[in-house]
Amino acid sequence: MSNEKNAQNQKQAAAQTAITPTRAENYPEWYQQVVRAADLAENSDVRGCMVIKPWGYALWENIQRSLDKMFKDTGHKNAYFPLFIPLSYFEKEAEHVEGFAKECAVVTHHRLKPGVKADGKEGLIPDGELQEPLVVRPTSETIIGASFAKWVQSYRDLPLLINQWANVVRWEMRTRLFLRTAEFLWQEGHTAHATEKEAMDETLKMLEVYADFAENWMAMPVIKGEKTEGERFPGAVNTYCIEAMMQDRKALQAGTSHFLGQNFAHASDIKFSDAEGKISFAWTTSWGVSTRLIGGMIMTHADDDGMVLPPRLAPSHVVIIPVTHKPETAQAVLDFCNRLAADLRKIPYAGRTIDVEVDNRDIRGGDKAWQWIKKGIPLRVEVGPRDMEQDSVFMARRDRAHKDKQSIKRDEFVAQVTTILEDMQSGLFARAKAHRDANMQRIDSRAEFEAFFGAKNEAEDSGGAVKGGFALIHYSPDPKLEDELKAKFAVTCRCIPVEGDAEAGTCIFSGKPSARRAVFAKSY
Amino acid sequence: MSNEKNAQNQKQAAAQTAITPTRAENYPEWYQQVVRAADLAENSDVRGCMVIKPWGYALWENIQRSLDKMFKDTGHKNAYFPLFIPLSYFEKEAEHVEGFAKECAVVTHHRLKPGVKADGKEGLIPDGELQEPLVVRPTSETIIGASFAKWVQSYRDLPLLINQWANVVRWEMRTRLFLRTAEFLWQEGHTAHATEKEAMDETLKMLEVYADFAENWMAMPVIKGEKTEGERFPGAVNTYCIEAMMQDRKALQAGTSHFLGQNFAHASDIKFSDAEGKISFAWTTSWGVSTRLIGGMIMTHADDDGMVLPPRLAPSHVVIIPVTHKPETAQAVLDFCNRLAADLRKIPYAGRTIDVEVDNRDIRGGDKAWQWIKKGIPLRVEVGPRDMEQDSVFMARRDRAHKDKQSIKRDEFVAQVTTILEDMQSGLFARAKAHRDANMQRIDSRAEFEAFFGAKNEAEDSGGAVKGGFALIHYSPDPKLEDELKAKFAVTCRCIPVEGDAEAGTCIFSGKPSARRAVFAKSY
Repeated sequence: MSNEKNAQNQKQAAAQTAITPTRAENYPEWYQQVVRAADLAENSDVRGCMVIKPWGYALWENIQRSLDKMFKDTGHKNAYFPLFIPLSYFEKEAEHVEGFAKECAVVTHHRLKPGVKADGKEGLIPDGELQEPLVVRPTSETIIGASFAKWVQSYRDLPLLINQWANVVRWEMRTRLFLRTAEFLWQEGHTAHATEKEAMDETLKMLEVYADFAENWMAMPVIKGEKTEGERFPGAVNTYCIEAMMQDRKALQAGTSHFLGQNFAHASDIKFSDAEGKISFAWTTSWGVSTRLIGGMIMTHADDDGMVLPPRLAPSHVVIIPVTHKPETAQAVLDFCNRLAADLRKIPYAGRTIDVEVDNRDIRGGDKAWQWIKKGIPLRVEVGPRDMEQDSVFMARRDRAHKDKQSIKRDEFVAQVTTILEDMQSGLFARAKAHRDANMQRIDSRAEFEAFFGAKNEAEDSGGAVKGGFALIHYSPDPKLEDELKAKFAVTCRCIPVEGDAEAGTCIFSGKPSARRAVFAKSY
Repeated sequence: MSNEKNAQNQKQAAAQTAITPTRAENYPEWYQQVVRAADLAENSDVRGCMVIKPWGYALWENIQRSLDKMFKDTGHKNAYFPLFIPLSYFEKEAEHVEGFAKECAVVTHHRLKPGVKADGKEGLIPDGELQEPLVVRPTSETIIGASFAKWVQSYRDLPLLINQWANVVRWEMRTRLFLRTAEFLWQEGHTAHATEKEAMDETLKMLEVYADFAENWMAMPVIKGEKTEGERFPGAVNTYCIEAMMQDRKALQAGTSHFLGQNFAHASDIKFSDAEGKISFAWTTSWGVSTRLIGGMIMTHADDDGMVLPPRLAPSHVVIIPVTHKPETAQAVLDFCNRLAADLRKIPYAGRTIDVEVDNRDIRGGDKAWQWIKKGIPLRVEVGPRDMEQDSVFMARRDRAHKDKQSIKRDEFVAQVTTILEDMQSGLFARAKAHRDANMQRIDSRAEFEAFFGAKNEAEDSGGAVKGGFALIHYSPDPKLEDELKAKFAVTCRCIPVEGDAEAGTCIFSGKPSARRAVFAKSY
């Protein structure tokens, strides 16, 4: 009991302050505290597996809804494939299995029986050993490939454009909520085409869809680019990605789109006959984004007060808090708030309608406001008896200081709400872009490069300030050199941008020719 | 090549006929053939795991959308919990683990390494044995309970109303597409309450939601009832269910809602302090429906021509087939069809808008029509040059004979389309209800009961006609007797209805008093 009261007191104390530590004090720890304070997710007792809490899951549902529409608008259909992959499938593509073998959950038994456990105690132990172990999917190229091989016979069956929303498992050693977890939720698109060109067009089209989503829904500016050999998806011919800069100037790979050539078509035997009856292997692609996007949103927009949600994806847009100190006006104020909520809920916004919470819980007003600030709700509206009399409300925008409230006529607020939200959405994007652009630098010599990033410093991982940003350098790809740069500076080649500045130069390391600048950075 | 041509020829031949065998000839085999011909799902090479194909998955998405709204409208929020359950969690509730131990997928290793396999060949073998094995969730009471124990401190945290959409795995020995698969998709609601009454009210409320969904969306009449002890969910105090009659007169359990009492609160330590500071265990419930519902829909509505979709859940409502034999009018006909589609797509229906396919593929008209008949699309519209001239279309309803087409003015069709769909929806329900009522019989003696069902007959499982239906009998629950009836007649107590006829009587087996009649039937 006293423990619980302590916990309760601590909870209340915590509720009235900003996030501890601040971003400047310890960025990784600040991140964990924002996730916790915003009630987005928590660690479970299962190693590396998270629990996505309702506020975090609602955010994921909005991500899903928007992306799903973009996928369907570009001709893709959803389907669902098995969670388990027979080991023999998995082994079909050599680079692929090599890439995932070290981090697979493996199912070896199909029942439990009473017995003596490893710790010497009586209990249940695995029984019914499988003839062939099953791998819990870390990605589904091989299992979906087996279906594609059945579905594709003729050129008429192509293109085959499929997407799957699913959970996947990669047994990561170091995990961090949303950014890197053993189990995560994602979508994986898998397509098959008759020609190399069509498959490449698809790969780049989906890269474009991801960039569009990141910038216009998440308000997170991204660079579209191609990965170098060492950073490619295992089994891919080319991997394209979108890379964003977080507030600590490290890069986050937010989505990838792979041109798989005919590698997986060979592995899974995906063949078709063309109009003349000639048999060829199909050309395939795959592309995915995951719950990692939520980590990216936090690290792009959240501040020292907690989460800041881009309005278009926010689970709720507006919280209305009735301020009802006087019992005689409490009901009238609540009615006023409910009518306001009802009017707001009719307004279309970002493919749905304005989502409103009326928070009439019996807790202290300061605690209540802070809870919503930390959750990152875009607009906080307070209504007391005097506001009601004047037919106005007090409004606070999450993108401004939390004490910065303004009185606004109720009807004007209703009329303006989508404009305000869109202003916040574009403001968040502009702020993030300004931050990135300020920390992206053209670098033209190895010495400058080394000075920009500094030597590898373990303190950066445990909360110290991160030196560097995005270095734009002329670079001639060299896997060995990339290993060296990673070891010495914790820096990797994030991508070779597909757009923008295409002036040629010479590699700052080797002096070899370079067609365009690559982006190097520290990364998540 | 010749193999493929053969396959192609067979495909075309198959496309122009009804389902083989018919329902009367072999119901279980008819079922498999409908799933296949409607392109809903197929078996994978992973034992008991299915691939849900785009048409089947779109149906599942519509089920999800409708149910999810019903859950949210009743105050539930979605969240996501780990796929893996530590064995020690699973063991916490004795009946629960007993119930699932024999059919669990068990993860024992977290990586692969090169080695010699069971068959003596070189390849990858499991490596990195886990200290504690993980069970792939067959249901999530114990893992969600661990979170609830953290989230619930005070009565103010209750009720806690959570739902999860997820995949689960139960290692079933005999599997059948949708009806019983090793992996399936479902939703599982989990709630915690301060009082027994609130938890029981929740259990029955969700039973009501399921019945509402089954009858008003799936057009599948159900009986709401309580399970007897032997059929209860492992660990539950009471299990309630909805039971539907399939066309072969066997029962299908389509959804369950469990009152868990304080069993799982004890197992997971879910406690709260009330307003006076007294600590009590919470009362919990869980409830779920799965992709099995799709199996229920097929066995309720499909016919000897293939699938018949209830319009409110159909992935598409209308297919428009341009009949363009003459090249000089082909484009005009296609334009006419596209304009019609555009007009239809503006019409609201069943929480979305009318979904239309314009099928302009270059395949034989007969094949094309049959593909859509088999897929079960509610309305098939054909438009040729003469129809176009008369501003009319040929319309066929999937609930009528496939040759029964009617000419209807284009504008009238647009004006009437939702009325026609709703007429089909209610017609499907009425037909299913009439079938059930005709095969549900009050039985008042053991002799009559035995004659109604006949002795257990293996032929029924392999396609022979099923004897019996729903027997309404006075019954005093007796687990031993239920085992005997199952062994001798393959009949189980499906439920004791919670509504309707409540006239008391005496058990037809024991002569003991019975408050109301129970439903006995053969079942899936």
